[in-house]
Amino acid sequence: MTETARANLENLYRIFTVPEAPDSTLGAIDQAITKNVADFLQKHVVSLERSLEDIEKDFFLSRIPDEPTFVSEYTTFVKEKLVAQSVHTAAPGFIGHMTSALPYFMLPLSRIMMALNQNLVKVETSKAFTPMERQVLAMLHRLIYAQDDNFYQHWIHDSRHALGAFCSGGTIANITALWAARNRLCGARDDFAGLAIEGLPRTLEYLDCAGLAVLVSRRGHYSLGKAADLLGIGRKQLILVDTDVNNRIDMQCLREEYRKLQQQNLRVMALVGIAGTTETGHIDPLEQMADFATEFGCHFHVDAAWGGPTLFSDTYRYLLRGIDRADSVTIDAHKQLYVPMGAGMVLFKDPHTLTAIEHHANYILREGSKDLGSHTLEGSRPGKAMLVHAGLSIIGRRGYELLIDLGIEKARRFADMIDAHPDFELITAPELNILTYRYHPAWLQQQMENLDPQRQQQINDLLDQLTREVQKRQREDGKTFVSRTRLRSALYGTEQITVFRVVLANPLATDAILVAVLAEQLEIISSADLQALFSAMNEICQLATQSV
Amino acid sequence: MTETARANLENLYRIFTVPEAPDSTLGAIDQAITKNVADFLQKHVVSLERSLEDIEKDFFLSRIPDEPTFVSEYTTFVKEKLVAQSVHTAAPGFIGHMTSALPYFMLPLSRIMMALNQNLVKVETSKAFTPMERQVLAMLHRLIYAQDDNFYQHWIHDSRHALGAFCSGGTIANITALWAARNRLCGARDDFAGLAIEGLPRTLEYLDCAGLAVLVSRRGHYSLGKAADLLGIGRKQLILVDTDVNNRIDMQCLREEYRKLQQQNLRVMALVGIAGTTETGHIDPLEQMADFATEFGCHFHVDAAWGGPTLFSDTYRYLLRGIDRADSVTIDAHKQLYVPMGAGMVLFKDPHTLTAIEHHANYILREGSKDLGSHTLEGSRPGKAMLVHAGLSIIGRRGYELLIDLGIEKARRFADMIDAHPDFELITAPELNILTYRYHPAWLQQQMENLDPQRQQQINDLLDQLTREVQKRQREDGKTFVSRTRLRSALYGTEQITVFRVVLANPLATDAILVAVLAEQLEIISSADLQALFSAMNEICQLATQSV
Repeated sequence: MTETARANLENLYRIFTVPEAPDSTLGAIDQAITKNVADFLQKHVVSLERSLEDIEKDFFLSRIPDEPTFVSEYTTFVKEKLVAQSVHTAAPGFIGHMTSALPYFMLPLSRIMMALNQNLVKVETSKAFTPMERQVLAMLHRLIYAQDDNFYQHWIHDSRHALGAFCSGGTIANITALWAARNRLCGARDDFAGLAIEGLPRTLEYLDCAGLAVLVSRRGHYSLGKAADLLGIGRKQLILVDTDVNNRIDMQCLREEYRKLQQQNLRVMALVGIAGTTETGHIDPLEQMADFATEFGCHFHVDAAWGGPTLFSDTYRYLLRGIDRADSVTIDAHKQLYVPMGAGMVLFKDPHTLTAIEHHANYILREGSKDLGSHTLEGSRPGKAMLVHAGLSIIGRRGYELLIDLGIEKARRFADMIDAHPDFELITAPELNILTYRYHPAWLQQQMENLDPQRQQQINDLLDQLTREVQKRQREDGKTFVSRTRLRSALYGTEQITVFRVVLANPLATDAILVAVLAEQLEIISSADLQALFSAMNEICQLATQSV
Repeated sequence: MTETARANLENLYRIFTVPEAPDSTLGAIDQAITKNVADFLQKHVVSLERSLEDIEKDFFLSRIPDEPTFVSEYTTFVKEKLVAQSVHTAAPGFIGHMTSALPYFMLPLSRIMMALNQNLVKVETSKAFTPMERQVLAMLHRLIYAQDDNFYQHWIHDSRHALGAFCSGGTIANITALWAARNRLCGARDDFAGLAIEGLPRTLEYLDCAGLAVLVSRRGHYSLGKAADLLGIGRKQLILVDTDVNNRIDMQCLREEYRKLQQQNLRVMALVGIAGTTETGHIDPLEQMADFATEFGCHFHVDAAWGGPTLFSDTYRYLLRGIDRADSVTIDAHKQLYVPMGAGMVLFKDPHTLTAIEHHANYILREGSKDLGSHTLEGSRPGKAMLVHAGLSIIGRRGYELLIDLGIEKARRFADMIDAHPDFELITAPELNILTYRYHPAWLQQQMENLDPQRQQQINDLLDQLTREVQKRQREDGKTFVSRTRLRSALYGTEQITVFRVVLANPLATDAILVAVLAEQLEIISSADLQALFSAMNEICQLATQSV
């Protein structure tokens, strides 16, 4: 072995055997985060935004460097180029997306999880983590379905069945639910081996139907479109049912769509209810939908990725009434269970449902083993369930209840602030802790009523431009952040308008911050170059007056 | 607000605002891991195994506790019930699965990643993490496809295209590849909107074919079966082609299977090559498979989840010759890139391929945005690409080369040890760093040759029992660990036999450990209650001699 080769080998062993020194660059950052993560983020995430094109310059090398880099040197790069230009998703003023500050204990517990590096696909690489994850699934199952002690004692650790599947997020959870629903509807019988084996085309021949369909409201999450594509049923067969003025599925329209599907000889493989739409936080009439699913005998899935934890609240649980009649429910842990990114779950009322997607292999997942991997879409997976277990244990049901109640009540106060301000317009009032609104000055609101639809549309287009621009500048200034989306509002017919979207899950987002958000938007709006938009709006109104 | 309510609220704020004290129970564990993770695991993971049924008793509560638990109390539970009963996957003697010790820097960098809690589905919640992930994908793409600087400068940050998709693991990577292959084969044209929209049944009508099929060898990973089910093509249409004596796909059989599919009017949507089978580490003849795919015009996917990083090695890269002709390649980062669990990738030769599964939504993933989520199966995702970025930068190409070379050479030495020992039988020699073997005493090996097939089978059944039992006891003793699987061996016809499986990726697994693994197995085998198996084998042999 040459001198260089020996030196290289020694260096290599070093990174596997010698811990980072506490006074090294990386050690120091590690300690700073340990000591006070909020302070670390405050100091190191630069709030003023650089353009993405500019940031990309630091990430342009496409060749893997041949030679190693010192950890210290790399850490400096991470600090200056990655951390500094990341997004402070935990900031109390970051109320535009579904991330929040996290409980402090999540970080050191994550380190234990990372250090153990378990693989939950099988018992041999996860041991106690397997029953722990099954317990977490049972706890969430009980939160939703409230079966009795006997039920859980029987099923919680039953090797051949599963109360649900832990996964990387709500998208995989929704896909898993629809996958199971599809396969169960088209299961093996007599002379037919089932869809899983035969495939969709032959299944349809066997069932003598033209296709499978999924029904959900227009507000359904985009993961359902992915699922319809992935599962081979086709996006065209994902039927987006119209909503009422409160963004809830219109039961009359649902019935109508169902009738149309029957006429086309399409079988409904699932009806999907939403418990907290991503854009407005509204909840479908789950009870009525459950009745509907029972009447027509189809799988009823509820996407409660966002709103599921509302079940913790004695005060607001009623909003989800009927969810216990769902065949499957999606809940995201990295949303309102306050767990770091990458943790979702799907729960199944009937412990037999997941057998519809069961699979085995010789070296793992042997039949009858307790390996979790035989019922999951994913294969190798980390032990993130541990963080859910920690949250449920440390925060407890009442702690989560408090978090839920705080958010909903804060959203109502913010809605009141917007309502009270003459120049803002509340577009969707919060049912949970999400609301949408836009800037729409009082003088213009008055004029709008008298305009013909075409001119209203012109004004709305200009307001859309304004909203987009304000949202962009507010983000770039880095003090506070709201997101934006486009949706239909009962106020303005069937055309979509652009709105600000606010999510109030971070318990550290105070009322003072909400006041500041509106103040900052007003300030941006008053900047000189946006005035042109108002002149244009004014002109449209004047032309309208003249033409009368 | 009542006194209790106020106290609860204060406690709640505390967990979001007050860091764990360094001298608290959790703080102390955190520091211990920071100081020396190997030492922590050594001390706290109990090596002697408790039965799973016994462990389950600690995870039987199905009701979410109403009241909060102190962090210290919960941490004690974690230490005693979870950590102690987890699996020491990083132990140098744990050579049965694909986990390894990790470079030290991975832990503090993971903490930075957790603290930032970015969501890579969109730029608004990930900023610099988006170009960073794209860079990682470009680096891996270049490792495989070696396009020139111009190519990468053009595509690396192109918002409408993607060189690949980062995901939670190889299963999602394989599914993504086959999803894209399916949709591309059945894309929109003239009067047809494409499979993604129309669904599989109508697509087959349009293409006038009876079904889609995927071809892979018998050694294909079980995720391909899941994919065939999920994508609606059906497991029956996942054609498992016979292998040669070296566990590589038999090209003659492949041609034969292809012909049969044509006769049935089934279209091949993908041919899958394996670069490192999960069970034996063998590599398919990729060059010949690429020729085949070119000849018949079908998508060529290579599942290099395990073996992909062999490309780092100047010495062994040749084993993957032809991989650059694949349309898509899966590589797992949590395997031989030495990143913690939950990181996989799929790379696509043509940056246009992923448009076949593109999707958008109003509030994120707007068309033309650089949001990564428009080309991934998953939705919200953590910033794990950062750890791959760190590995590639800090370890460098040469460092990974050294790791790969060490593993392959160690496997060869272990194979030599097994070969040299009269009572062990090497079943599959290592092409990479994986091998399989079994205990098969010299006296029995001699007799086996003279036995008729039926008696050989009886002996093999008994040897299978022995192998299972030894593997189980070795695991339970907790000193060293090998896994087991069942496979066909050219030595014993078409029936499967049970074998020990060893994976040598942990650089800390010394030759002394390999010696100890065999010694421990011999010791277990010499235990009294296993002797009955040998008596039974002996009896079969004697009966055979008498009957001659």
